[in-house]
Amino acid sequence: MRKWNGWVDEGRHPTLPPAALRLIEAELGPGRPTPDATLADVIAATPASRLKPSPLISLDPEDRIRHATGQSLPDWIALRSGRLPSIPDGVARPTTNDDVRELLAFASATGVHVVPYGGGTSVVGGIGGKQTSRQPVLMVALERLAGLTELDERSGLATFGAGTTGPDLEAALSPNGLTLGHFPQSFERSTIGGWVVTRSAGQQSLGFGRIEALFAGGRVEAPGGTLELPPHPASAAGPDLRQLVLGSEGRLGVLTEATVRVVARPKHEAFPAWFLPDWAHAMVAARAIGQAGLPLSMIRAMTPLETASVLALAGESRSMRLLKGYLGLRKVGPAPSLLLVGASGTERVVEAAIREVGPLVRREGGIAVGGSIGRRWIANRFRAADLRDALWDAGYAIDTLETGVDWTRLPDLATAVEDALRHGLDELGERVLAFSHLSHVYPSGSSLYVTYMFRPADPDETLDRWRRLKAAASRVIVEHGGTISHQHGVGRDHAPYLAAEKGELGMAVLADIARRVDPGGIMNPGVLLGDEP
Amino acid sequence: MRKWNGWVDEGRHPTLPPAALRLIEAELGPGRPTPDATLADVIAATPASRLKPSPLISLDPEDRIRHATGQSLPDWIALRSGRLPSIPDGVARPTTNDDVRELLAFASATGVHVVPYGGGTSVVGGIGGKQTSRQPVLMVALERLAGLTELDERSGLATFGAGTTGPDLEAALSPNGLTLGHFPQSFERSTIGGWVVTRSAGQQSLGFGRIEALFAGGRVEAPGGTLELPPHPASAAGPDLRQLVLGSEGRLGVLTEATVRVVARPKHEAFPAWFLPDWAHAMVAARAIGQAGLPLSMIRAMTPLETASVLALAGESRSMRLLKGYLGLRKVGPAPSLLLVGASGTERVVEAAIREVGPLVRREGGIAVGGSIGRRWIANRFRAADLRDALWDAGYAIDTLETGVDWTRLPDLATAVEDALRHGLDELGERVLAFSHLSHVYPSGSSLYVTYMFRPADPDETLDRWRRLKAAASRVIVEHGGTISHQHGVGRDHAPYLAAEKGELGMAVLADIARRVDPGGIMNPGVLLGDEP
Repeated sequence: MRKWNGWVDEGRHPTLPPAALRLIEAELGPGRPTPDATLADVIAATPASRLKPSPLISLDPEDRIRHATGQSLPDWIALRSGRLPSIPDGVARPTTNDDVRELLAFASATGVHVVPYGGGTSVVGGIGGKQTSRQPVLMVALERLAGLTELDERSGLATFGAGTTGPDLEAALSPNGLTLGHFPQSFERSTIGGWVVTRSAGQQSLGFGRIEALFAGGRVEAPGGTLELPPHPASAAGPDLRQLVLGSEGRLGVLTEATVRVVARPKHEAFPAWFLPDWAHAMVAARAIGQAGLPLSMIRAMTPLETASVLALAGESRSMRLLKGYLGLRKVGPAPSLLLVGASGTERVVEAAIREVGPLVRREGGIAVGGSIGRRWIANRFRAADLRDALWDAGYAIDTLETGVDWTRLPDLATAVEDALRHGLDELGERVLAFSHLSHVYPSGSSLYVTYMFRPADPDETLDRWRRLKAAASRVIVEHGGTISHQHGVGRDHAPYLAAEKGELGMAVLADIARRVDPGGIMNPGVLLGDEP
Repeated sequence: MRKWNGWVDEGRHPTLPPAALRLIEAELGPGRPTPDATLADVIAATPASRLKPSPLISLDPEDRIRHATGQSLPDWIALRSGRLPSIPDGVARPTTNDDVRELLAFASATGVHVVPYGGGTSVVGGIGGKQTSRQPVLMVALERLAGLTELDERSGLATFGAGTTGPDLEAALSPNGLTLGHFPQSFERSTIGGWVVTRSAGQQSLGFGRIEALFAGGRVEAPGGTLELPPHPASAAGPDLRQLVLGSEGRLGVLTEATVRVVARPKHEAFPAWFLPDWAHAMVAARAIGQAGLPLSMIRAMTPLETASVLALAGESRSMRLLKGYLGLRKVGPAPSLLLVGASGTERVVEAAIREVGPLVRREGGIAVGGSIGRRWIANRFRAADLRDALWDAGYAIDTLETGVDWTRLPDLATAVEDALRHGLDELGERVLAFSHLSHVYPSGSSLYVTYMFRPADPDETLDRWRRLKAAASRVIVEHGGTISHQHGVGRDHAPYLAAEKGELGMAVLADIARRVDPGGIMNPGVLLGDEP
């Protein structure tokens, strides 16, 4: 079971490799661990539920606390300090579609607000946060609407309950030699329903497709009715309603089941790595590869500081020292950028694709370092999330943010976001560590994923620091024409910035759609559209 | 200039190869040519415009007639007989975005209906048809909102006026070594704006992507305001408004400019062909290839009758006789199905991909016949549309329809549609020739494109025959779970079948969106949503 106030399971205590801790200490100063509240404290302070007892709804305080937040940094501050801005009044665990309809009818009749809960992994305030309304809040946890319910092997279409987690989903497909190929960093905790309604991108989305491409259809139960989305392979029959459900973040109802396009597990995979002399050359190489029309599954490029952090976090100092020695001999440069490429498919096609990549990287001064870094990265790719626990315990707060933008604007945006973060706490005399990578590369642009760390203080002060940094970075993203989110969604944290890209008429259209499917405005209010009552 | 009542240019008179004519005569009986009305007759019968003269709007009768219809079979019947169900009151040719806003303001103030006009190639009644409203109708022709207006080579983003035709678009990209790679059969006449608002699929969409993937952003002018869609490479910032414009068919305003994702022209292309023993094996082979995760640009499989027609229409009887002799020797079967595959990219990757295809086809009894059929098909791929003129002149009506469906339901659907068409005029004692191909193959299913021919009679009777056939085929498509259109759109002809896949709530959502952007309901009423006043 996951810790009530962290990412890792109860009983696990991940620690930082000494090299990584030294790197962070050198940048930020010594860590400032803050005291944790206990679950018992929070339970004791939990207000009584405003809901009446019902067989479908748990009113248990611990249950309510465990569904009160996602995994954003403000959520962490609240959980660790025990000062939760709001605690839902109940948790329902529907086991059938009819249960969901019954819950929505009950909520509509009584004005209760409904928040769908998948894996609880939102990092943008998609769950919880400060509810300003006086209405009771009911979490609809989807953990029992889970599992493979239908498999059409011939068509490669698999239907899952929306609450199916990543590992359960892949385990259900595995006996048939199939995979969805969707591996976001939250894979182990997040659910297929959450992926769909937040427009998730898996780490190999270049090959397997973003969830937008994988989500063929499904069913949404809303207060205003049911939306059934047939899983056509493609259609020119008017606007695509799937694309409204994708990114709807619980505002347009409860996605109860999703039919996804699954494929045969690739026979062969390769993850070669290169070092580039610097970040500028790494970006050019990533673009060249992304625009070469090659059948690749992943292109990832890291700033020198992220490269150093990844190597430090890998913690295997001897092989890393050897690698650094090798890179020094080859004179790749004092601040090299790591570039990882993935390809999946038949051996012949994978080999042909990788062979085309080599010259594109070498043209930018890249040096190939083989497949071991890539293999290690793949093996540990879900463990990076565990480091939040380790860092917090060591007295550092960590958060990430991300955007997507065209290649022309990317370099300036990347510099400006890191600068905004690094200097965001200057007037408090606190330093901020920030580094970035391109995690998803497209022919027309790239995502930019930024990690930043700073030292916490008391809960209010820590939250204030986060607000300053988040606002500074978000403003820079909007000013430079980036989307406010490439893969995490909008939630409450990005809602103020959404109109910048949707426009006034676009926001009005979205509000109309929400009103049609949810006339009473009970679905996850405040999230996405920023219309907190 | 295009004939006012046909597909080909004035002065061109395409004819059928004798072998093709013999094949059709054998199936349908001798052709029944019908008399054509002259343009002068139609001009003489054109009612006076109900619009006041204005510098922005042409009231010229010939102009109005030339913008009265698309290219559906009912449109053809109307044009050839001279009995147009409606003729618009004027044609505007805006040259700037402000012109469009001015026209919309004028139309909103006076209740004039507005129909955006791109290439006039709709085959589903997206333009024209019987307008039952008494309001004047203004066509907004986009031919002067055309051309490349911005090119960001680094990002591969090109912005075009919506009225840019296929050849002009590719010609503008060609000096930079770029291509959009979007080649629908209507390529020579249709426009980028039309492609977007009808969700067009080019013949190599497997490699280059459907227009949904290529359309990065743009601008829509609507009576209710302006929608600006930023060209992010990808975004998780809520529902995707681009996906509402895609497929909007003029109902949500006028798309005035589109930014598309362009790529380097592929260095190498190959179009190998195979013959399969029969249609069932061809479908299995197409599926196997489509699910193998290979970097291909096209997979096309034809029924035996379509295969015979293509070979007959190719008209080069000597090489075809030799080919048939060869296939006879190789014992591929009495009714072989042609399978065409395309790959585009670097020579190494194209070769690797094609080498993976061979075993998949051979497993289904396929015999490779080299690259000449494919090369000829590519060279002539836009000429097939000219045959409509030749067939009509020879006394035969031809129409096509299409759907997309998963692999499991495809074989039954394909049989049922052809059967419904073949026997659709039984009670009139008329025969119908029908054949099909898979033109766009996906891992989870395929498009199915059906061509059918029958003999016309007087205009009312011909229209009645078409209505019977169209209704029979559309019912079968809906009953078998296919989408009512995979690549042509909805228009007026498919509008009655749209609710079957969008659902009641979905249709209400679409109507709400239309109301928000077009409160007066003046944009192309009757099309898409079937809400003819």
